[in-house]
Amino acid sequence: MTEKVLKAIQDYYPDDFAYCYGCGRRNSEGHHFRTGWQGEQTISLYTPLPEHTAIPGFVYGGVIASFIDCHGTGSAALALHRKNGHEPGDGTEPPRFVTASLKVDYVKPTPQGISLKAIGTIHEIHPKKWKVDIEVFAEETLCARGEVVAVVMPSTFLKKD
Amino acid sequence: MTEKVLKAIQDYYPDDFAYCYGCGRRNSEGHHFRTGWQGEQTISLYTPLPEHTAIPGFVYGGVIASFIDCHGTGSAALALHRKNGHEPGDGTEPPRFVTASLKVDYVKPTPQGISLKAIGTIHEIHPKKWKVDIEVFAEETLCARGEVVAVVMPSTFLKKD
Repeated sequence: MTEKVLKAIQDYYPDDFAYCYGCGRRNSEGHHFRTGWQGEQTISLYTPLPEHTAIPGFVYGGVIASFIDCHGTGSAALALHRKNGHEPGDGTEPPRFVTASLKVDYVKPTPQGISLKAIGTIHEIHPKKWKVDIEVFAEETLCARGEVVAVVMPSTFLKKD
Repeated sequence: MTEKVLKAIQDYYPDDFAYCYGCGRRNSEGHHFRTGWQGEQTISLYTPLPEHTAIPGFVYGGVIASFIDCHGTGSAALALHRKNGHEPGDGTEPPRFVTASLKVDYVKPTPQGISLKAIGTIHEIHPKKWKVDIEVFAEETLCARGEVVAVVMPSTFLKKD
């Protein structure tokens, strides 16, 4: 049985927030990470491309860090959206988060050619700042642990719009 | 005056270690980060591609994390190589490191279209484990701070060779 993310928060970001190289649906070159609820936790699935190598056979750590990064901001957006009474696809624009900090512990070499799964556990620090603890699995093997602190996008990011 | 990295450690990695998506010279799709000495510190330079957006106008955090990651492993390899009496290009194969952990604090939104500079300060934890503190600048502006703990590549990584 293949797992799927049905309603991802990234499917509903406003267009001007949909060009992220990690998770923007409008970035034709990007990874297109997608993050949805799985009970009270969050899930993203991604199969790295053949060129995303560390050494042949194993996935590049920077792609794993990217996966964790966008899973973190997506999870925070899901959580604040739900706190505000909304779910992805209900017609209300979700909040937008950016990453304040990112930590990754590489637990095991991550094999290539396998769908990776990020599972997030979300903690509210305050309404505009959330921490997401993330585990990345290749099948049943825990390959990396991450922590993302995400904050509601500050207005400085919008000045160029 | 344009800064350049003349002798990068990645230019001298053995071929089977040169496919990293971040810094492998033989990965045709990758970023080709290159890390060299700058006095007692290390330097890498990189201009993100137009598609490496967070939101239009700013660089994606996952690419900055990748830049920090490879700058960390490259710096550790430079340092152990020098400790062993060698410099890049002297005919001796450099040591190979992998990332144990990565931390990034995103200090300011990083503008696109500008060459980024990573500067590393290296600390030996023990001969097989090094910590590299990294600052990433866009021109004179500090945009991100990173810390990489890099370890000499364990034999588990080579079993697939």
